[in-house]
Amino acid sequence: MNQPYDMPLSELENYLPPLTREKDFSKFWESSLEELNSIPLEYSLDPVDYPAKGIKMYKLSFKGFNNSNISGWFAIPESQGPHPGILHFHGYNWAFDGRHHDVANYALRGYAVLFMFCRGQQGESIDNVVSPHGHSIGWMSKGLLSPEKYYYRAVYMDAVRAVNILASIEGVNKDKIAVVGESQGGGLALATAALSQIPILSVTEYPFLSHFNRAIDICPEGPYGELNEFLRRNSDPQIEIDAKRTLSYFDVMNHAPDIKCHCLTSIGLVDQITPPSTVFAAFNHLKCTKEVSIFRYFGHEYIPGFVDKKLRTLMEFLQA
Amino acid sequence: MNQPYDMPLSELENYLPPLTREKDFSKFWESSLEELNSIPLEYSLDPVDYPAKGIKMYKLSFKGFNNSNISGWFAIPESQGPHPGILHFHGYNWAFDGRHHDVANYALRGYAVLFMFCRGQQGESIDNVVSPHGHSIGWMSKGLLSPEKYYYRAVYMDAVRAVNILASIEGVNKDKIAVVGESQGGGLALATAALSQIPILSVTEYPFLSHFNRAIDICPEGPYGELNEFLRRNSDPQIEIDAKRTLSYFDVMNHAPDIKCHCLTSIGLVDQITPPSTVFAAFNHLKCTKEVSIFRYFGHEYIPGFVDKKLRTLMEFLQA
Amino acid sequence: MNQPYDMPLSELENYLPPLTREKDFSKFWESSLEELNSIPLEYSLDPVDYPAKGIKMYKLSFKGFNNSNISGWFAIPESQGPHPGILHFHGYNWAFDGRHHDVANYALRGYAVLFMFCRGQQGESIDNVVSPHGHSIGWMSKGLLSPEKYYYRAVYMDAVRAVNILASIEGVNKDKIAVVGESQGGGLALATAALSQIPILSVTEYPFLSHFNRAIDICPEGPYGELNEFLRRNSDPQIEIDAKRTLSYFDVMNHAPDIKCHCLTSIGLVDQITPPSTVFAAFNHLKCTKEVSIFRYFGHEYIPGFVDKKLRTLMEFLQA
Amino acid sequence: MNQPYDMPLSELENYLPPLTREKDFSKFWESSLEELNSIPLEYSLDPVDYPAKGIKMYKLSFKGFNNSNISGWFAIPESQGPHPGILHFHGYNWAFDGRHHDVANYALRGYAVLFMFCRGQQGESIDNVVSPHGHSIGWMSKGLLSPEKYYYRAVYMDAVRAVNILASIEGVNKDKIAVVGESQGGGLALATAALSQIPILSVTEYPFLSHFNRAIDICPEGPYGELNEFLRRNSDPQIEIDAKRTLSYFDVMNHAPDIKCHCLTSIGLVDQITPPSTVFAAFNHLKCTKEVSIFRYFGHEYIPGFVDKKLRTLMEFLQA
Amino acid sequence: MNQPYDMPLSELENYLPPLTREKDFSKFWESSLEELNSIPLEYSLDPVDYPAKGIKMYKLSFKGFNNSNISGWFAIPESQGPHPGILHFHGYNWAFDGRHHDVANYALRGYAVLFMFCRGQQGESIDNVVSPHGHSIGWMSKGLLSPEKYYYRAVYMDAVRAVNILASIEGVNKDKIAVVGESQGGGLALATAALSQIPILSVTEYPFLSHFNRAIDICPEGPYGELNEFLRRNSDPQIEIDAKRTLSYFDVMNHAPDIKCHCLTSIGLVDQITPPSTVFAAFNHLKCTKEVSIFRYFGHEYIPGFVDKKLRTLMEFLQA
Amino acid sequence: MNQPYDMPLSELENYLPPLTREKDFSKFWESSLEELNSIPLEYSLDPVDYPAKGIKMYKLSFKGFNNSNISGWFAIPESQGPHPGILHFHGYNWAFDGRHHDVANYALRGYAVLFMFCRGQQGESIDNVVSPHGHSIGWMSKGLLSPEKYYYRAVYMDAVRAVNILASIEGVNKDKIAVVGESQGGGLALATAALSQIPILSVTEYPFLSHFNRAIDICPEGPYGELNEFLRRNSDPQIEIDAKRTLSYFDVMNHAPDIKCHCLTSIGLVDQITPPSTVFAAFNHLKCTKEVSIFRYFGHEYIPGFVDKKLRTLMEFLQA
Repeated sequence: MNQPYDMPLSELENYLPPLTREKDFSKFWESSLEELNSIPLEYSLDPVDYPAKGIKMYKLSFKGFNNSNISGWFAIPESQGPHPGILHFHGYNWAFDGRHHDVANYALRGYAVLFMFCRGQQGESIDNVVSPHGHSIGWMSKGLLSPEKYYYRAVYMDAVRAVNILASIEGVNKDKIAVVGESQGGGLALATAALSQIPILSVTEYPFLSHFNRAIDICPEGPYGELNEFLRRNSDPQIEIDAKRTLSYFDVMNHAPDIKCHCLTSIGLVDQITPPSTVFAAFNHLKCTKEVSIFRYFGHEYIPGFVDKKLRTLMEFLQA
Repeated sequence: MNQPYDMPLSELENYLPPLTREKDFSKFWESSLEELNSIPLEYSLDPVDYPAKGIKMYKLSFKGFNNSNISGWFAIPESQGPHPGILHFHGYNWAFDGRHHDVANYALRGYAVLFMFCRGQQGESIDNVVSPHGHSIGWMSKGLLSPEKYYYRAVYMDAVRAVNILASIEGVNKDKIAVVGESQGGGLALATAALSQIPILSVTEYPFLSHFNRAIDICPEGPYGELNEFLRRNSDPQIEIDAKRTLSYFDVMNHAPDIKCHCLTSIGLVDQITPPSTVFAAFNHLKCTKEVSIFRYFGHEYIPGFVDKKLRTLMEFLQA
Repeated sequence: MNQPYDMPLSELENYLPPLTREKDFSKFWESSLEELNSIPLEYSLDPVDYPAKGIKMYKLSFKGFNNSNISGWFAIPESQGPHPGILHFHGYNWAFDGRHHDVANYALRGYAVLFMFCRGQQGESIDNVVSPHGHSIGWMSKGLLSPEKYYYRAVYMDAVRAVNILASIEGVNKDKIAVVGESQGGGLALATAALSQIPILSVTEYPFLSHFNRAIDICPEGPYGELNEFLRRNSDPQIEIDAKRTLSYFDVMNHAPDIKCHCLTSIGLVDQITPPSTVFAAFNHLKCTKEVSIFRYFGHEYIPGFVDKKLRTLMEFLQA
Repeated sequence: MNQPYDMPLSELENYLPPLTREKDFSKFWESSLEELNSIPLEYSLDPVDYPAKGIKMYKLSFKGFNNSNISGWFAIPESQGPHPGILHFHGYNWAFDGRHHDVANYALRGYAVLFMFCRGQQGESIDNVVSPHGHSIGWMSKGLLSPEKYYYRAVYMDAVRAVNILASIEGVNKDKIAVVGESQGGGLALATAALSQIPILSVTEYPFLSHFNRAIDICPEGPYGELNEFLRRNSDPQIEIDAKRTLSYFDVMNHAPDIKCHCLTSIGLVDQITPPSTVFAAFNHLKCTKEVSIFRYFGHEYIPGFVDKKLRTLMEFLQA
Repeated sequence: MNQPYDMPLSELENYLPPLTREKDFSKFWESSLEELNSIPLEYSLDPVDYPAKGIKMYKLSFKGFNNSNISGWFAIPESQGPHPGILHFHGYNWAFDGRHHDVANYALRGYAVLFMFCRGQQGESIDNVVSPHGHSIGWMSKGLLSPEKYYYRAVYMDAVRAVNILASIEGVNKDKIAVVGESQGGGLALATAALSQIPILSVTEYPFLSHFNRAIDICPEGPYGELNEFLRRNSDPQIEIDAKRTLSYFDVMNHAPDIKCHCLTSIGLVDQITPPSTVFAAFNHLKCTKEVSIFRYFGHEYIPGFVDKKLRTLMEFLQA
Repeated sequence: MNQPYDMPLSELENYLPPLTREKDFSKFWESSLEELNSIPLEYSLDPVDYPAKGIKMYKLSFKGFNNSNISGWFAIPESQGPHPGILHFHGYNWAFDGRHHDVANYALRGYAVLFMFCRGQQGESIDNVVSPHGHSIGWMSKGLLSPEKYYYRAVYMDAVRAVNILASIEGVNKDKIAVVGESQGGGLALATAALSQIPILSVTEYPFLSHFNRAIDICPEGPYGELNEFLRRNSDPQIEIDAKRTLSYFDVMNHAPDIKCHCLTSIGLVDQITPPSTVFAAFNHLKCTKEVSIFRYFGHEYIPGFVDKKLRTLMEFLQA
């Protein structure tokens, strides 16, 4: 008989594991941002014939990190702007055709929406990260042995670039931009909020990419489990040390203290993919204004009870 | 090694099992409709503070079959009408709070939308059907031994009443009404299209409640399996005869020839809940204009590739 | 590596969570019993041709709560009475044709046996409870938001009526009546023992319907899980408060202190449907004479090692 | 989408695979019976204090094949005999303490009942078969490479001895003896009916040990699968030839034509442990009077709808 | 009840689906080989302290397709050569540290062994293929929309390069080289045998990468299922056409007629990862001398009964 | 959310449950060894045509406990000896044809290797233990109610005899003998090291047969679970007492203090078949020189990272 929690709620609310930032954490990201900034801000918007009135839909391509092409969707109300903006990131391995319908739903609510396909995961988002070593299946351990080579370095920088682009598109109110996402998308939204000054709000659902050390310990299944698999295949203890060092740079928990915008997050208490302790680890390190919506009976899944809160918060910050 | 089909596509396209209508099939439904018509058309709309601009959202209550209260959502654009209408039915055992966000998504696209909670399955939709016998868990075998007492008789009549109500709400264009739904909702949409002259279009996704005889044979799991369970618990052969006779009145395949409006349906070829043969059984008996979208790699699940077709068809018939 | 317990045995034996009775707990049941008593005690016994000598088998129908028809089996030795009586309740969703063979087995042992089909779950036991709201699949959340409307209010009253009827049948020794049951049947037996003065013994196997608050916490699967599902579908926190308040009236743990007859119960230490802590919660609140048989290696299943103890206890109290 | 049958019912009813008897099939069994007959018929009955009135319960020990001790239960009504007799065999790996309660249930119905524990599977039934080779886990492949050494040779002879003993116990009507059993017990009952003239009736439920060649082909799981496992572990093709030759002597299908008493059998059409084709293979080879009860919705499990038929048939043949 | 085959053996043995070669199939591979040949043959061997006497073990690095670094193991007997050579490819996603122990086992048998890590899958084998589009998780759909960009183009060329290198290492008898592998490794061995004149023998176990069209149809799970997943995520019918066209160039079935060396393959008849029909499709198209070892009771797993045959065949062709 | 450990590593390293030796533990084994010694040391070696150069392979038969025939493999380098010896025991229910290839791999590394098939589990190893009672499926509970009759008494003595034979074969260096094995084989290796003075080294991987009392508590699945199943089927508390008393004689933990040779063992921290606490229980009771290799991410499976350590340790102790 096992209680399907990782910790009781009272412990979760006070769970504050020490940060695992390396000394050069900030430097690493500064130089990454510099590298990003050296790439010219370029994008194209190709109109798409979308079956709804009142909005315009585009296929978006932009130049991401390493000069790679990153694709996605952009939609904006036909009405006179400027319109507040939403940058939406999808979950890990959870991108398929048809995601523009979600984009349309936001646009119909009055937002200019940019939806980015994570490199390699769908669309024409090209992953030109070349890992200097083999890895376990998936993207989680691609380039894992070095922060500079890790897959997510490029993804985080693509995300920062995406928010820059959103802010620069005509008709978008660059002072009213939110970052949103579920799971991996939640992790990317938080990372973007830490690495960019543009977002004034993040709304994240059961964010991934947080508190890796505990996740490796308690989540042998799911995306975090790709890390376990990598450590199974490479049993030299130095590999584990190097891998965890790399992960520390990308751990959303370590980014949390740098976030300045308002943060709303949801978490289900029986989530076994991004267990609540990993989410609270990040949340409790936030120093900004923040709010968490806790769902006792939900796991890593669509939580209908959160939608109202999410929409209201977006309206409050972006449409008020 | 089993191929995950029930039949190859070429057989499906020509699959035309004989109808199983009892002689008094039409009479049964005529008298049911008469009974429905004897109930006054009453409903109330309570405004709800919904977090989106441009639409109005209401909690809907109406008087359904047996004078029962049926609840649901209604949303309509704030702009000047009349607006085309969509009546949306949900899947079996697939109703929860938060469904009004789907309603809002349609309303934002310019439709007046009525979403009905099936009696007993959620909300304040009260199921006052009293089965004269015990049944297996769920609603599928409630009252199964007699067409007059069967749960779905009330549901089908609630559905017809719902389309009447939608057509009568101010601001709704009663000549531009579609019925839509997934799974159980697809079955209800088709039944409504057969039993009411109001709909000019049905858009159904992997409709349920079709070709029960085969479904019982090949679907021991899933909602159809509740029927198997009932027959396991009641092994008198007469029970099976009576049950199948009852089901014949509700079998969407038997209703298909009565449908006059245009029908679009989707089906995944690896659907194990509403296997393609059960869907084609109904589809191939349709005598109206019709179209089917086939998805080779999809089962009983959200099919992103169908959304565009669905939205375009709705626009074509309702917003052209 | 998880130990398949909810608590070690030493903790179980001392586990005494506080009762959760509302102030009007007793009043609620008094008025329910009054309502029951206003219904005339009516029943019919239809002889059945049963393939065994020495006993008579009948289909039983009686008037239950809300004037509903409740059905079951009754068997009695052909020999001269009066015979001690056993009232037998079945498990949740565990009723099918053929249960009269179990009834015969008791009758052949010298008992007059009444086996009641829980309303709606099988036979001609008609469930005329109409829930004022939708619920999750099954009976557990039917009418859950109000004690007066809850499904089990009617079932508990049907059970009390059943023991009244058993005591009144000719040939039955009304001073020698036991209530027995497994799982849901165990919960009903305990409730009946609390709400009626007739039983002089209860023999319950892994009783259900006990210590709901903990069950919701640790049993996301199984019948208790229907409650979790209801709370998932209705995420308003007030719903959870109301539901738990309703359940408090039906919690066998809360009824335990009112039981005056001897109680024998069994429990398997790896039971995941009615975890041992929920059973001990009720058992430890019993103030009557009592005995528990603990089976270290058994879950929620037929426990052959308990049968001898059960039969001996029945003989001791009813046939001595 | 797979239909959960092995063959449609119409094919099953006519399924008559050729027998696979070796030339010396009859000789093999004659000499086995001779060997059995050389062992003196010895048994002891130790009274047990059983908690029911009207019957006497005994622990039985008898001398089986190879002079091994075989144990079981024996119960008989206390009333004046002679009483008709039932010899009951249990399922494969399905024997545990508490089986005497089933025995009591028959005795209370007026039968003298002998329940035999298969050697090695429970109680003090000693399996002194020593396999001349290793085997896969379980008893199915013990001694499989030679008919003389195969585990079931001893079991079949124990069964024949058991029926001899039942016929010889005082108070038992040796002209009114039935053999009954489920699964392995059904196979043993049929084998006993073929190898002994004593039984006047067999009642078998989904009998095992039939049509091994097909079973190996279509049942990789379940007890037949132990044979597959043996063939996996011993890949020399000669091993498969020898194993199948051995099995032919024990195949109930091959024994069927020798049965002279009336045979009643049940089978569920979705049985995956003893698939219907294997049962019909034996049934269709029976030349005696026979009857089969088919349960469309049942697998290898308790079938409540068969109990009435079983009890009536026993009464008709034994108590009329 | 499903028979765990895709086809009966008699059908398999004659299963000869038409080749699906595009017109420029040969040209495509000629130009690919030209591109490979333009890369200088470079490799390094770093001695490793391996705990066994009589052999020398090295870490191997060589320059593969696209100038990428490919790593692996090389071992050779210390005794005077030249030694016959074995090129060993591993299964899909089945590479981890410790594989050099398998290499050592061959070397101890007198072979010079080269074990190649497929690019990206382990070690320092760098996958510098950059897919021009996103793909489903894994490598199977990386670059799938164009033969030039497909992941396996680089892998096949790496394999050809590996056999060139093995043939050029001092102490290796370049006229006695075999290619071996299991699953993906079997597919690569066959492809290498088709694309290079060096191998005089291939020994493949349940080879993968064969008869993709059928595999997509019948293998929704396993590595082939990554292709299904890609087609689920990209529902444009043109995508499926393009993907299948790409796969045709890599389909081992299409390469089979080009193989000139002797081919030994094994297949289990209950293999659900590389179903026997896909293996026989390639095998039956071979025009060289060939032999297949069929294992009735084995799936996609280590088949102990094949090892002897494998070792003998290697000795016969390489050490005779 | 459950952490897949039984205890944290820090607890494991200090876990020292009290021994459960009965007073006559040593006497029991002394008299067992005497009984073994009364059997003449007899064996035969039949040459086998094995497809590798440099070694000779034999089928071995020897006279084991109870004069039973025990079979296995023996291989030895063709080169001049004497060669150090390895006695290899296989896992529980994990023996099949083809195991001589593992034997060959050791012989090619310079060892004389004896691989013993556990009686009854494969080959011609005849299990002539006759249990005086029925048991649950498998060997774990065969004869469990008495140390003298327990299956493993014969197996332990067979193992001791095997090491005697290995030491006596010509060409084997009897002063350089190691015992090795995985799971059951690890348990047997440790027992042999305790009961014989011959081994100078044991190398065991996740040894089984250790700390039975805890294993019964926490391992309801896997081989230990056969003990649970036996206790389920025999619920008399005295049975559990007797069974645990028997097991105490065979518990490798209880043998640990008697081992004098060097011991190397491996354990995976997520092993659910032989949980780490059961392995550490034995390891921490060793008084000899010892070493443990801990694998955080591995369960009960092949651990590639341990092979190097194993081979080096064997070389160090046997080939230095």
